[in-house]
Amino acid sequence: MKLHDLGEFPFLRRLRERLPADPRVLLGVGGDCAVVALPGTTVLTTDAMIEGVHFRREWTTLTRLGEKAFAINASDILAMGGEPTCALLSLGVPPDTEVEDLDAFFDGFLHAASDCGAALIGGNMSAAPCLMISVTLLGQTVHGVITRAGAKVGDDIYVTGTLGDAALGLRMLQEGRTDSSAEDVKGRFLCPTIRFAVSRELAARHLVHAMIDVSDGLLQDLGHLCEAGHVGAVVEAPTLPLSLAYQAVLGKNHWDTALTGGEDYELLFPVAQDQRETIGQLAQTSHCPITRIGRIVSQSEGLTIRGPDGTPLTVARAGFDHFRQGQK
Amino acid sequence: MKLHDLGEFPFLRRLRERLPADPRVLLGVGGDCAVVALPGTTVLTTDAMIEGVHFRREWTTLTRLGEKAFAINASDILAMGGEPTCALLSLGVPPDTEVEDLDAFFDGFLHAASDCGAALIGGNMSAAPCLMISVTLLGQTVHGVITRAGAKVGDDIYVTGTLGDAALGLRMLQEGRTDSSAEDVKGRFLCPTIRFAVSRELAARHLVHAMIDVSDGLLQDLGHLCEAGHVGAVVEAPTLPLSLAYQAVLGKNHWDTALTGGEDYELLFPVAQDQRETIGQLAQTSHCPITRIGRIVSQSEGLTIRGPDGTPLTVARAGFDHFRQGQK
Repeated sequence: MKLHDLGEFPFLRRLRERLPADPRVLLGVGGDCAVVALPGTTVLTTDAMIEGVHFRREWTTLTRLGEKAFAINASDILAMGGEPTCALLSLGVPPDTEVEDLDAFFDGFLHAASDCGAALIGGNMSAAPCLMISVTLLGQTVHGVITRAGAKVGDDIYVTGTLGDAALGLRMLQEGRTDSSAEDVKGRFLCPTIRFAVSRELAARHLVHAMIDVSDGLLQDLGHLCEAGHVGAVVEAPTLPLSLAYQAVLGKNHWDTALTGGEDYELLFPVAQDQRETIGQLAQTSHCPITRIGRIVSQSEGLTIRGPDGTPLTVARAGFDHFRQGQK
Repeated sequence: MKLHDLGEFPFLRRLRERLPADPRVLLGVGGDCAVVALPGTTVLTTDAMIEGVHFRREWTTLTRLGEKAFAINASDILAMGGEPTCALLSLGVPPDTEVEDLDAFFDGFLHAASDCGAALIGGNMSAAPCLMISVTLLGQTVHGVITRAGAKVGDDIYVTGTLGDAALGLRMLQEGRTDSSAEDVKGRFLCPTIRFAVSRELAARHLVHAMIDVSDGLLQDLGHLCEAGHVGAVVEAPTLPLSLAYQAVLGKNHWDTALTGGEDYELLFPVAQDQRETIGQLAQTSHCPITRIGRIVSQSEGLTIRGPDGTPLTVARAGFDHFRQGQK
């Protein structure tokens, strides 16, 4: 059945019936507003995915799209040391969309939200020329807010997971590649893994004083961290964590994509040098690779990437800007 | 200058510099998340406007569009008896958009927000095939939450302002009409007046036990109010408040558009009969027309519209659903 046959209100009624009850939500989907009590400090973020810009329907399933729509917002909350609590979903939907597809989208979104303990509390659905998904996610910061500022000269710089896979995956999708390495990195683009366990431990144990998620490319996001903290950074390119699939496609000495590719949604954070052992243990207990890739230096030294022989590397572009021409 | 020449980050930096400081906002536009403290009960809503679906660029100025984007969300907050506090703005923007146009949009949005005492605390901007505006607005309810439920049999039904103007204005825009009556109603569509003073008084004086804003047409929204309150309603069509421009174009005995037209953003609320004098005074002090249009009856009596001779009227359609075909 198509959405224009079912109609907006019957669809929302069906949706409301499948939402689990949540004690934090005084009034959820269905009224003029959602009503919640949000004690303490609340962190909020909003991010959008637009068909033809951020994804193509033929690349993915609606379930994965729903998961990703939640994940890219949750990643911002985790980067602040927060835990996702409530989501609002503003959907633009072509009227001839199959209700089953929309159901699948909500399957993915609600599953991802539930994994983080978050509830869908409200939203909006309207006709649109293409599928447009805008999520607002709220989170709570039980152990204090971690901002981008706070890096200290001498800190080690760590990053979770591997870098550049999502950007490479996007290229593989655009080029229609289907070999096994391509499939691996495509998955990283289509449904990023967010680092809930790592973020929670870092926050609860007050191990980090600055954090950001890598969404616009490592260099650009590290640049934001340096700007906010009035520091510089040195990154040792050979230490950058590259997946086997990435190395198979691009080679193990190709760092440009790892440095500048967007949508990795890994966590990037400086930590005092005397915590190396602790971070090593955290990587073990959270089952998440955490790699030391460089160190924080003084602001006057700027941001440097060093190659295998210790000399500075020149990188093709600084990172992703949605509006600058000739980037993608 | 076009946005793709300036770039996303320089634009956001310029925007950040023009935002006023706000003691409620611990961290605003620019980080991974906004950080706020939200004591008490928080109400939240999200609503979107999409170019080609909700507006055409040639119909309006970007300043008015910004004002409307805020207003349609604020209206939901007011309907809950709340006061807007914090807004997040998710924008999809064609890369060849003029920076001046985007500045004008923010002029309108920030002006409307400031009028209500609300702050823009965060957002997201991404490339899009058309202009897409999704707003999430938070509000506080100092005097308790007013929901859709709570109407009591015997209550009078009131509505602010006049009805049907926005729907008629949209038709005039679509038909390219430019006479003075057309101009009046077009303005109602392009930039609705929200009823901040009325909502605040109703909430502070605990005069209402149910409320909704008329965004999908009086009949449909009154239907929601009846459904939530397990009551019915009788509306006296001849008492419906019609503007002079509406009467000039459609005649004073045409009620269909007033009953079913969307986007009025007037407040609809039942009040105990013994409060008629109080409501009359409130209309005076708030400089806002408030009209008694009917009364709440038992659920078994359903929802009836009565014509001048007291017999039930049949209405062409129940109201607006974004996805049902053949409506607009």
